[in-house]
Amino acid sequence: MHSQIQLILDFMVEIEKLKDVHRKTRPVGLKRYENSAEHSWHVCLSALMLKDFAAEPVNIDRVIRMLLIHDLGEIDAGDTIIYASETPENKLAEENGVKRILSLLPESVAEGYLELWREFEDGATADAQFAKAIDRVPPLLHNLHDDGHSWRNHDVTKEMVLNVNRRVGKGIPALWQVLEGKLDQAEADGLLRSEKDSRSA
Amino acid sequence: MHSQIQLILDFMVEIEKLKDVHRKTRPVGLKRYENSAEHSWHVCLSALMLKDFAAEPVNIDRVIRMLLIHDLGEIDAGDTIIYASETPENKLAEENGVKRILSLLPESVAEGYLELWREFEDGATADAQFAKAIDRVPPLLHNLHDDGHSWRNHDVTKEMVLNVNRRVGKGIPALWQVLEGKLDQAEADGLLRSEKDSRSA
Repeated sequence: MHSQIQLILDFMVEIEKLKDVHRKTRPVGLKRYENSAEHSWHVCLSALMLKDFAAEPVNIDRVIRMLLIHDLGEIDAGDTIIYASETPENKLAEENGVKRILSLLPESVAEGYLELWREFEDGATADAQFAKAIDRVPPLLHNLHDDGHSWRNHDVTKEMVLNVNRRVGKGIPALWQVLEGKLDQAEADGLLRSEKDSRSA
Repeated sequence: MHSQIQLILDFMVEIEKLKDVHRKTRPVGLKRYENSAEHSWHVCLSALMLKDFAAEPVNIDRVIRMLLIHDLGEIDAGDTIIYASETPENKLAEENGVKRILSLLPESVAEGYLELWREFEDGATADAQFAKAIDRVPPLLHNLHDDGHSWRNHDVTKEMVLNVNRRVGKGIPALWQVLEGKLDQAEADGLLRSEKDSRSA
């Protein structure tokens, strides 16, 4: 039993590295980039509070487990902005990263989490669609409260934001309606540029 | 429904502040202090992996919810080192902070979480004892991997570490046995001083 505990302590030390993986947006009010560990907490607690608004009934405890592990692959693969991350190469690097981290654990403890991570990535089940919807919200809130900081930095247009984030509506329709209204306002306020505008400029 | 969603989005923005509450130890390998948001993720995932080692059967999903919210009171009250934090004044400030944060949410969404927070604080149930045990582990790992950094900074002796952390053994006996061995080693290595040594010095 003590050797199993030691393996889990080693895992706890290894996953500390997620606190040093930096994302592309800044927490509201802060002048530093968010890391993927604090992001993971934020989406877990947000999911809990939004569970009753899911498009289909979800098992919120499975959703939270998905969100606790969803970024572990970034310890090896790094964080990539959503507008560039969904390549086969990046997905493979993240999957290998998740496998390596889980391999630190006793087999009986790690069991099932790789499949749960894949289910999240595939985004096909109700639980995964809800989890993926939640995962997309903080970068939108960050940009909306930070003068479109990462949108500007990465030359992201409103069309790109809508394309990538429309999936929020699959998981949580009412949330997407509210966010769409905020994105329209962001365009009106000049935080987010539309391709239409740049063509006419 | 949209007004409820807006309240939850406001909550999501408000709890971002936990990412700016700094603790007294540094994540392994990093030269900055840990914040309470990334800490919260770390203990949730650690709890999940240690659940089978609990002293008594626990409801791990309740434990994870406890740990997701356990530090929300620090947004208003700040983080206090465990060796000084368990005063009635500090506990009251944290409780008022938790109440304020939860009051941002629709009532039906917030329901039950203040009681869950109090259960964690009281530490009387099996779920709370397990959650509190987990909460104590990262600062020990941080010190053990950081040359006793916060122990030195705050003049903490081995006796104080044992007194405050013995509760780990109530929640997860085998984990405490492993950690006690590490603390003995830390004393032998000079990372952690004993009061006995300072008296004889």
